[in-house]
Amino acid sequence: MRVSERVQEMQFSPIRKFNPIAIKAKENGKKVYHLNIGQPDVETPECFMGSIKAFNESVIKYAESGGVVELQDAVIDYYKQYGMEFERSDMIVTNGGSEALTMAFLTIINPGEEILLAEPFYTNYHTFLTTAGGKICPITTKAEDGFSYATREQIEPLINEKTRAICCISPGNPTGNVLTLDEMRLIGEIAKEHDLYIIADEVYREFAYDDREVASFGMLPEYADRVIIIDSVSKRFSACGARIGLLISKNKDVMSSAMKIAQARLCVSTVDQIGSIGLFRLPQSYYDEVKAEYCGRRDAVYEEMMKIPGVVCQKPGGAFYMTVKLPVDNVEDFLMFMLEEFDDNGETVMFAPAEGFYATPGLGKDEIRIAYVLNQNDMRRGSELIRLGIEAYNKKLGK
Amino acid sequence: MRVSERVQEMQFSPIRKFNPIAIKAKENGKKVYHLNIGQPDVETPECFMGSIKAFNESVIKYAESGGVVELQDAVIDYYKQYGMEFERSDMIVTNGGSEALTMAFLTIINPGEEILLAEPFYTNYHTFLTTAGGKICPITTKAEDGFSYATREQIEPLINEKTRAICCISPGNPTGNVLTLDEMRLIGEIAKEHDLYIIADEVYREFAYDDREVASFGMLPEYADRVIIIDSVSKRFSACGARIGLLISKNKDVMSSAMKIAQARLCVSTVDQIGSIGLFRLPQSYYDEVKAEYCGRRDAVYEEMMKIPGVVCQKPGGAFYMTVKLPVDNVEDFLMFMLEEFDDNGETVMFAPAEGFYATPGLGKDEIRIAYVLNQNDMRRGSELIRLGIEAYNKKLGK
Repeated sequence: MRVSERVQEMQFSPIRKFNPIAIKAKENGKKVYHLNIGQPDVETPECFMGSIKAFNESVIKYAESGGVVELQDAVIDYYKQYGMEFERSDMIVTNGGSEALTMAFLTIINPGEEILLAEPFYTNYHTFLTTAGGKICPITTKAEDGFSYATREQIEPLINEKTRAICCISPGNPTGNVLTLDEMRLIGEIAKEHDLYIIADEVYREFAYDDREVASFGMLPEYADRVIIIDSVSKRFSACGARIGLLISKNKDVMSSAMKIAQARLCVSTVDQIGSIGLFRLPQSYYDEVKAEYCGRRDAVYEEMMKIPGVVCQKPGGAFYMTVKLPVDNVEDFLMFMLEEFDDNGETVMFAPAEGFYATPGLGKDEIRIAYVLNQNDMRRGSELIRLGIEAYNKKLGK
Repeated sequence: MRVSERVQEMQFSPIRKFNPIAIKAKENGKKVYHLNIGQPDVETPECFMGSIKAFNESVIKYAESGGVVELQDAVIDYYKQYGMEFERSDMIVTNGGSEALTMAFLTIINPGEEILLAEPFYTNYHTFLTTAGGKICPITTKAEDGFSYATREQIEPLINEKTRAICCISPGNPTGNVLTLDEMRLIGEIAKEHDLYIIADEVYREFAYDDREVASFGMLPEYADRVIIIDSVSKRFSACGARIGLLISKNKDVMSSAMKIAQARLCVSTVDQIGSIGLFRLPQSYYDEVKAEYCGRRDAVYEEMMKIPGVVCQKPGGAFYMTVKLPVDNVEDFLMFMLEEFDDNGETVMFAPAEGFYATPGLGKDEIRIAYVLNQNDMRRGSELIRLGIEAYNKKLGK
């Protein structure tokens, strides 16, 4: 029996595909530092489980399709802090940012249409977009340039009659590239000139380091009718297993169309929504602490990476990822070596080969994504293991 | 800015579209009996919130994309009670039955292909299938025949080269029609002869009344490679707000293809999964009690409906819905009358007009779906209000 053409086009998660080999390595007694997946070790704020434990309804009922009103109001207040004004009807609570992205693509993309997206990109975009029959047109970026893409020269030549949207993940996964508000304004201008939507994936919004200010496409009222914001509690509140995301837009057609999809799937977890209300009401100090923690981790990894001869990367400005060019020809082969052959005092490290983050064939073969989701000591040790691994691997290859 | 053609094809939930008018009626002081929505008042078993309250992880992490292993094992044991053998790799835990259906259609349907589905049908099938670019080819059934459809005469003439699957909701929403195992076998035979999948939506599995035994397409090993079972905790355990569903199949291609979609959306609510483990381990006595409760409600509604001159319906065999032909020409107009003009001692009733449950234009205009989700007294009173309403409505129209 055959399956659909669309699922044949989809790929298994390149981030998860080495998991079985890592499991085997662990069964053989190796300790594996997991720098491959965006699952932070930062504690979920207590208010999440606290609110759930205080929830005393005897029937766990459907929530409204657009979301629990108290959660919507908390989100409205959260955005107000940054000077952004939204109403309940501007948002739909979704099953994580994942559903918000899928819903956005289903709502605006016809089969055969394209979105612009800087590569390397968060690999699941490919699956979400394939669900809607769309194609990614990659804006190729480079480690040497800090993966920047917000220029007319890079974006405009790629726009054609099939282009429907410019998608911006900022702060970026997997590169850590952060758009400034001026860069967002430029992208808004380009979008307006070519009548495109902007998908603003801002799930790492507060994780912008050094002197970067929080920036959002929601801060540009002149482009409000074409901006669709994707948000999530997963990273901001270290609550990845709480599947609470948001689709937000001031475009009424987009929202009422997306609501048809939302109504059909009835609602999002009532309990997770109850838990998430308090998250959006956390004080500024919460963000300051978490940001300082990630920033320290970034500095530690960057420092360690700079000790490896031949490594290319710029210090990333945000999120908790770093895409790094390594002095090896084939990173997948190197990862297999790390899991199956290498160890230092019984320890090894896992990272995500970056090839799966590129749409252009052949790119990213010598790059990896590191998620700095572990504490500084573990991040330093993981980075050290990469350094020692490269030495051992290139020695093995006779280099 | 335009939205996609697919969302333009989708409809707003016909079940939810009268909600604003009902809200207005309530604001005007009317009590409204809600027989329109499948939200039962039966208590969610305590183990659901109990397990969640005992969950003490400090980080709410991603679960595995296929589901929490302990939940998968509980589901395996639940199916074993009925003599059905499944493995972990045969199932994916989904965001409710809704996501399981969407995933199934995305996995097997190419744009332009068709599924067979008895009408009236659960209206959200239209949206799920439109997501995959598919079309519903309705098997038209009638109130007079108890909405039965499991015959070669009804099914085979509708099969053409675009047909990919026969979908069976059994026990059925919105009709309460229940397939016997022999009828399932016949459908299996037809599916095999024409190389079709079977989507077996069995979320009401245990709600089969009178002498009907629990039946499942999973009990027919000879068709296992073409059967995709849709399951959910929502109705069986009165936990609609816990978005836990299941996609189950022994077809390896289907499951590995669906897993690509599952991996991209990462996972289902960790907390809801923790809560659901115990649900699947509830003893037989739980099912006996709940079934007796719904069966009593069905009998009460049926008895009251039979008191209304001109009503056509057969006593439904399962689920908690009844589709009833009323002696009025336009049920939507009648519902507006009930909400805006009618009351009896300050009370009125809401039901779902059945037109939205049909794919064939013009059908169902004189039919309603009643969900017997309230206690017997409320169901009797709601039914009485329908009777009194019909009298008043037809009097107003001069009939």
